[in-house]
Amino acid sequence: MIARVSATTVFCLLAIAGSANAAGKTRTRNVAIVLYDHVELLDFAGPGEVFAAAARAGATGDEPAFRVYTVGRSKSPLISEGFVKIVPEFSIEDAPKPDLVVFPGGGVQSIVGDPALMAWARSAVDSSEIAFSVCNGAFVLGSLGVLDGKTVTTHFGAMSRLRSSFPKVTVQEGRRFVDNGKIVTTAGVSAGIDGALHVVARLLGRAAADETARYMEYRWAPEPYLAQSYASSK
Amino acid sequence: MIARVSATTVFCLLAIAGSANAAGKTRTRNVAIVLYDHVELLDFAGPGEVFAAAARAGATGDEPAFRVYTVGRSKSPLISEGFVKIVPEFSIEDAPKPDLVVFPGGGVQSIVGDPALMAWARSAVDSSEIAFSVCNGAFVLGSLGVLDGKTVTTHFGAMSRLRSSFPKVTVQEGRRFVDNGKIVTTAGVSAGIDGALHVVARLLGRAAADETARYMEYRWAPEPYLAQSYASSK
Repeated sequence: MIARVSATTVFCLLAIAGSANAAGKTRTRNVAIVLYDHVELLDFAGPGEVFAAAARAGATGDEPAFRVYTVGRSKSPLISEGFVKIVPEFSIEDAPKPDLVVFPGGGVQSIVGDPALMAWARSAVDSSEIAFSVCNGAFVLGSLGVLDGKTVTTHFGAMSRLRSSFPKVTVQEGRRFVDNGKIVTTAGVSAGIDGALHVVARLLGRAAADETARYMEYRWAPEPYLAQSYASSK
Repeated sequence: MIARVSATTVFCLLAIAGSANAAGKTRTRNVAIVLYDHVELLDFAGPGEVFAAAARAGATGDEPAFRVYTVGRSKSPLISEGFVKIVPEFSIEDAPKPDLVVFPGGGVQSIVGDPALMAWARSAVDSSEIAFSVCNGAFVLGSLGVLDGKTVTTHFGAMSRLRSSFPKVTVQEGRRFVDNGKIVTTAGVSAGIDGALHVVARLLGRAAADETARYMEYRWAPEPYLAQSYASSK
């Protein structure tokens, strides 16, 4: 098995080792969830629930581990893929600088085709600790050029298009998420939950992620090579 | 194993057999998702995603299987547990009559303590095909008296309180969901996804539920005694 461990995996283990050293940090990390018309509901609600629940599970005293907020092009209401009308808490004009920035999938052309939103996304990705995409949210990161040379994943239905759109990116099948250190991409829709729990484990330790999953009654099973690498406590 | 099949299970199998006969129906079912201040994000977004995706997966020609909408006390914005500001599509004054009515958990006192909302809930539950609770949304159904004499489930952290609040209700541990035919209750937060996929399988057949789960990249594993009972196609 060890012979099959990829460069990405090694990258990832190094990143985890680095953040494990940082475990115990008390600062609250800002988590910006980028919303837009036709965003897929569970793509943002999965990681949103994880980070909001982990804010408590990973808290140090009264200090929550995360401050989760929504960011839109403006504060006008938008409609998620289907049926939920949401008013973003912040616009790109006044959003706090994120430590983690989440790009859920859906009708991502609403982001990729909007120069002002892409300019904000570039700045947010550049200055963030982690940029996280769910599903075809990977097209946002791809369009920013930050996936070049990396191994990533996306929704199974978007893989061939991601490959042809970004030839310098290796798109991997059969993974719930792929962690490149700063860039974390997940497979479709519900896989955002697994990717977010992984990020919680990486930043705050396995116990905080387990407590979050338990609260959510989510059957979380991290990949074994990762599970061994998480700090056992925050 | 068969000796351990409960009265609830038999009830459930009869209900499934009944609805399997109805598989192939082309009508679009209305799915009302009841929102309120402090609703837990994934409690409503999980079933919301399932029914919205199954609307396509279970469609007959151009006729979607479900029309999913949100209902609030009013159309004023509300804040989900944490951080998402949502504007309900309908208020209790103008909401279409639901075939399925979903009560997600969270700060359910916002429903239970509101006589007008409870009056709407009673009418919606009475006239619906299925009333569905997630997590401590079971307290809404319990307060309406419709859980009396039934076996139900809820979030693990709410079980003892549900038992003491409603002594005529049997609260079962260790289940993702419990189906009483008209009343379907699920465990906490993410379990709403499993319960909703079960309802899709029951109403539209296993293939529609499998296709929905596949689209969502959700690892769905229905309980074996149920899996054998779903119609194989819609």
